[in-house]
Amino acid sequence: LHRPPELPEPTRWGRLVHVRPAGGSADELEARGGDGAGLDLRGVGVRIRRLLFGPPFRSSAIVRERMRKSVALPVLSADALSSVAYGPEAMLAILVLGGGAGLGWSVPVSVAIAFLMLAVGLSYRQTIRAYPHGGGSYIVATRNLGRVPGLVAAAGLITDYVLTVTVSIASGLDAVTSAIPSLHSAVVPLGLAMIAILLAGNLRGIRQAGALFAAPTYAFILAIALMVIVGLIDAAGRGFEALPRPPVAATQGVGILLVLRAFSSGSTAMTGIEAISNAVPAFKPVEWRNARITLDWMVGLLVAMFAGIVVLVELNGIVPDSNQTVLSQLAHRDFGNGPLYVYTQAATALVLLFAANTAYNDFPRVLFLLARDRFVSSRYLRMGDRLAFNHGIIVLSLLAAVVFVAFGGNTASLIPLFAVGVFLAFTLSQAGMVVHWWRLRGPGWRTSISFNAVGCISSAIVFLVAAITKFTAGAWLACVIVVGFTVVGLLIRRHFDQVGHAVALTPGAPQDGEAEDTPSEISNLAIVPVSTLNRATVRALAYAVSLRMPVLALHVTPTEEEGERFRQYWRAWGEHVPLEVIESPYRAVVAPTIAYIESLHAQRPELTLTVIVPELALRHWWQRRLHDDDASRLRRALEPLSKIVVTTVPLHV
Amino acid sequence: LHRPPELPEPTRWGRLVHVRPAGGSADELEARGGDGAGLDLRGVGVRIRRLLFGPPFRSSAIVRERMRKSVALPVLSADALSSVAYGPEAMLAILVLGGGAGLGWSVPVSVAIAFLMLAVGLSYRQTIRAYPHGGGSYIVATRNLGRVPGLVAAAGLITDYVLTVTVSIASGLDAVTSAIPSLHSAVVPLGLAMIAILLAGNLRGIRQAGALFAAPTYAFILAIALMVIVGLIDAAGRGFEALPRPPVAATQGVGILLVLRAFSSGSTAMTGIEAISNAVPAFKPVEWRNARITLDWMVGLLVAMFAGIVVLVELNGIVPDSNQTVLSQLAHRDFGNGPLYVYTQAATALVLLFAANTAYNDFPRVLFLLARDRFVSSRYLRMGDRLAFNHGIIVLSLLAAVVFVAFGGNTASLIPLFAVGVFLAFTLSQAGMVVHWWRLRGPGWRTSISFNAVGCISSAIVFLVAAITKFTAGAWLACVIVVGFTVVGLLIRRHFDQVGHAVALTPGAPQDGEAEDTPSEISNLAIVPVSTLNRATVRALAYAVSLRMPVLALHVTPTEEEGERFRQYWRAWGEHVPLEVIESPYRAVVAPTIAYIESLHAQRPELTLTVIVPELALRHWWQRRLHDDDASRLRRALEPLSKIVVTTVPLHV
Repeated sequence: LHRPPELPEPTRWGRLVHVRPAGGSADELEARGGDGAGLDLRGVGVRIRRLLFGPPFRSSAIVRERMRKSVALPVLSADALSSVAYGPEAMLAILVLGGGAGLGWSVPVSVAIAFLMLAVGLSYRQTIRAYPHGGGSYIVATRNLGRVPGLVAAAGLITDYVLTVTVSIASGLDAVTSAIPSLHSAVVPLGLAMIAILLAGNLRGIRQAGALFAAPTYAFILAIALMVIVGLIDAAGRGFEALPRPPVAATQGVGILLVLRAFSSGSTAMTGIEAISNAVPAFKPVEWRNARITLDWMVGLLVAMFAGIVVLVELNGIVPDSNQTVLSQLAHRDFGNGPLYVYTQAATALVLLFAANTAYNDFPRVLFLLARDRFVSSRYLRMGDRLAFNHGIIVLSLLAAVVFVAFGGNTASLIPLFAVGVFLAFTLSQAGMVVHWWRLRGPGWRTSISFNAVGCISSAIVFLVAAITKFTAGAWLACVIVVGFTVVGLLIRRHFDQVGHAVALTPGAPQDGEAEDTPSEISNLAIVPVSTLNRATVRALAYAVSLRMPVLALHVTPTEEEGERFRQYWRAWGEHVPLEVIESPYRAVVAPTIAYIESLHAQRPELTLTVIVPELALRHWWQRRLHDDDASRLRRALEPLSKIVVTTVPLHV
Repeated sequence: LHRPPELPEPTRWGRLVHVRPAGGSADELEARGGDGAGLDLRGVGVRIRRLLFGPPFRSSAIVRERMRKSVALPVLSADALSSVAYGPEAMLAILVLGGGAGLGWSVPVSVAIAFLMLAVGLSYRQTIRAYPHGGGSYIVATRNLGRVPGLVAAAGLITDYVLTVTVSIASGLDAVTSAIPSLHSAVVPLGLAMIAILLAGNLRGIRQAGALFAAPTYAFILAIALMVIVGLIDAAGRGFEALPRPPVAATQGVGILLVLRAFSSGSTAMTGIEAISNAVPAFKPVEWRNARITLDWMVGLLVAMFAGIVVLVELNGIVPDSNQTVLSQLAHRDFGNGPLYVYTQAATALVLLFAANTAYNDFPRVLFLLARDRFVSSRYLRMGDRLAFNHGIIVLSLLAAVVFVAFGGNTASLIPLFAVGVFLAFTLSQAGMVVHWWRLRGPGWRTSISFNAVGCISSAIVFLVAAITKFTAGAWLACVIVVGFTVVGLLIRRHFDQVGHAVALTPGAPQDGEAEDTPSEISNLAIVPVSTLNRATVRALAYAVSLRMPVLALHVTPTEEEGERFRQYWRAWGEHVPLEVIESPYRAVVAPTIAYIESLHAQRPELTLTVIVPELALRHWWQRRLHDDDASRLRRALEPLSKIVVTTVPLHV
């Protein structure tokens, strides 16, 4: 509002042309600019928020820098690359149930997963070209498959993002507790502390920018690269002979089910692979080409790191251990206990924390898109004054905290839920792409459609395997959430459609919009509830009379005598307004007032009743707690009645 | 409202004479009659409350039956008589610290306590005659000593009632766990369950009435009488020779401090002795005489039961034990493990539960009196629809629950707090009576004043002993609470006085009351914030125009282009009202609107601005959660501004 609004044309308020904020600089106004999360804006509240979250941002700050590929790669691939910290481990944790024979399957299963990475990666290359403005699963599925598949994809994404936070934090803490075992018992409070840090940071509005976000990813890539190289040199020294595995007792037989479960668990090593296709507009021009090159690099790195880790595990005869991660075991073997070991663990923990943070950008964006399409509450459309979607950030933190506590911060038990959500979204997104190419059938559509079809089918296989083989291990919960979310989303959309229909002006004839109530047809009657005669009530009465409509004062009395006494006061005051005294044999004041107004409405339905409520405007919340809240109770009680307008006349004391 | 209110004189709305509740029987109206505890009245909320608490009562139900003495005695003395379940035990628990030598002091200390009972009892006989309409400590102290002593007495009463609940429940559970030791570890959850039952029962509105409340007291009196008689017969069999006490190691020397502490702890055996003097109007005529007779009976029973228990303890060589109450040990010795033992424990637990319940009648009444004198929030004046003071009941339950959990449901550690609160209130009440008789100096005033002086001095001694000797053992907390409560009460009173002064009409010249704003001096301008053109906004605009004041529509737009587009819609609609478009470079809609209105007010301070807010009135809370709450945020933000009237025009969909 630093630019004074100008009246569009001469009006009867000629003096209003230059309106400037009164008593307060533009900055102050800005400070009150946004008001996210329904927090109290006044007094102490604002000061605490400023202290925690800093001054507000202007909307113009939202225009982000375009990213160079060397920055985009670490920023957008932190989520995907960090997944190799838990993906291989999740696969091995299933295979070890089959003992040595089970672990023997790790190479073939890994080859299948690497193939899947390539297939899905190639698939997303197509998405980048087709949706240069950003093609998240929700958008692609909605545009090509329709409303319900889009909602299902969104439900998949919601579980995906919640579990990205929880799994990344759980796995990051695994990296920490591998190095410092004494912290093992404190995993749940530590995880909650991490979520609190992410919450506070994102409410402040962390921007995905520059070196800060690039460093951990590069540090992690470097750590894994070093580890693999040192490990391979070691192995080369003994002629690449695999060290013998310690004997492991099989707790179940090696069957197709075990292998499939290991495959779907290991596939979580590719979660986050879709990030680049969502963020194409953030690249420098030519956006889609740069995004594709970055995606190629990311998939290449992902496959290389995944393969390197699996090969090292094979060569060193590593067996998964619930007290120490596989990565920690490998790092110990390569680097001993020295600084390089600590560096590896720290880089792992850090990249996982940053991976968790990416969900804080993606989750509120999905909710924003859902709110725009009216599948969720419209509060998710509102940005806080730090340009962050505070409501979405808070909801994500709460959900992640609940899931983290419910699963005790245990990575392994979170994996089934994760796989279901992620691959459901992947499948619907790729299916949407198949439909997209089929509809378009532009040049080269056959290549594109086949890549997407392969991606879709392989994602669908992982989804089905995860949902079926792990149904009892937690996947059922993901299914319930997806179905529940979809149903609730559709119900909310129906509500919004009904309301939209109800409030729409008659189409085609905008002049008729007010036909039901043209101003000249409205007959008004003002009612002023008066409990005692004081400055507040007299002000309300004066205002009512100034409206030049008939006014009736209403007094509720417990007994006839007290009513008579009030009538005498009224006469002494001058009886400027006709007074109606209601005797209430009950203790209530609000209810008889409502009943009176209702019956008045029933008798004279053509009247618009304006209830003018005197109210004390008190400065502090504790003052408001001390006084009767009759005014607000009256307002709430009158809200459901039609043709009743409630006016509050405040007296400031 | 079953009786239609009649217009006092012919008005211009002649047709309004017979007003009846529209659409709804008188019962329905009654159901909405009260609305306590700020709970949501609509829909599910009401149904749940009805299910839990039953249908509402009429005010007329508040006229209670007068009580016969045989009913009044058990009802009003449950609190006092049940105190012998923990009083002697509390005394012995202190004396046992001095070993056998310490326990040797139990008879002299008991004699002192019995004297105290008689002195305080005689004192309250005077109060009954002087305050036949009920003379609680707060009333007596306020009327005779002034505002601050009255508040201090009220603070004493507040701690008294909170601790009556906690100590009675803790002691009742002691009786239960003495019989069933396996429940020992579940004391805290059991205690919270008891508080929850008392809360629910009192929100329903338990009435102090009839056989239900008389039974447990008589049962308890019978149990103690049986126990004492059987014990005495046993002792008579061996020539009243005391059994040898098991040797007890002294943990500290027997000094005056120990004896005084034992005396003040044992004095809790007379808590609740004031109950009859509070309830004189509940007796049949002649009220004060019947009340006195009942008081005599109660004090006699109290002294007899207390003395009987102490004598039995002496004769049987009982030593207090943290796993079993003294009463349970005595009952075991008399009755073995048979049904009589179970009956004794059950009667004890039950009478203590009913004693806890009496605090639920007294605590809200004190808060009511304090609220009437404006020392606490006026919400404590409001009765729920079951004629109970719901706010006070809820506050008492919360406080009792917090204290119970904080002290782990341990009776012994609660006693010091209890003694301080009770005897502070006693002392101030008796001091007030001394002043009362001195001022009056009617016939026989010398006898009365001397009784009250003795009561006052002995109560003061107990209060000082408890406060000083147990300062570190919990009495400090009681002192902090009393001082804090008094200060807060005075601050609240000051606030109410200030507000009362601010809203008072100029005294002596009631016609001048509206001098500051006579209706003809008010110049109005209506402002209608319009986000889009729909039925809700058009209705608000039509209403605004119907008020026959100048109207200005206000639209906030994020960009110039969108603003221009809206202006075109506005023209297409017919431009019935001048439109002002504010460009907001920020995301906020509410803040620029406020800033605009503020600046308008600064430019034209003589205008009363009526902000007419279109609002969707939605039926269910979850629907309201789905929509923008811009209307209510606007209302809240406008509240602190002066000369601004906020009007809500609802559209029901």
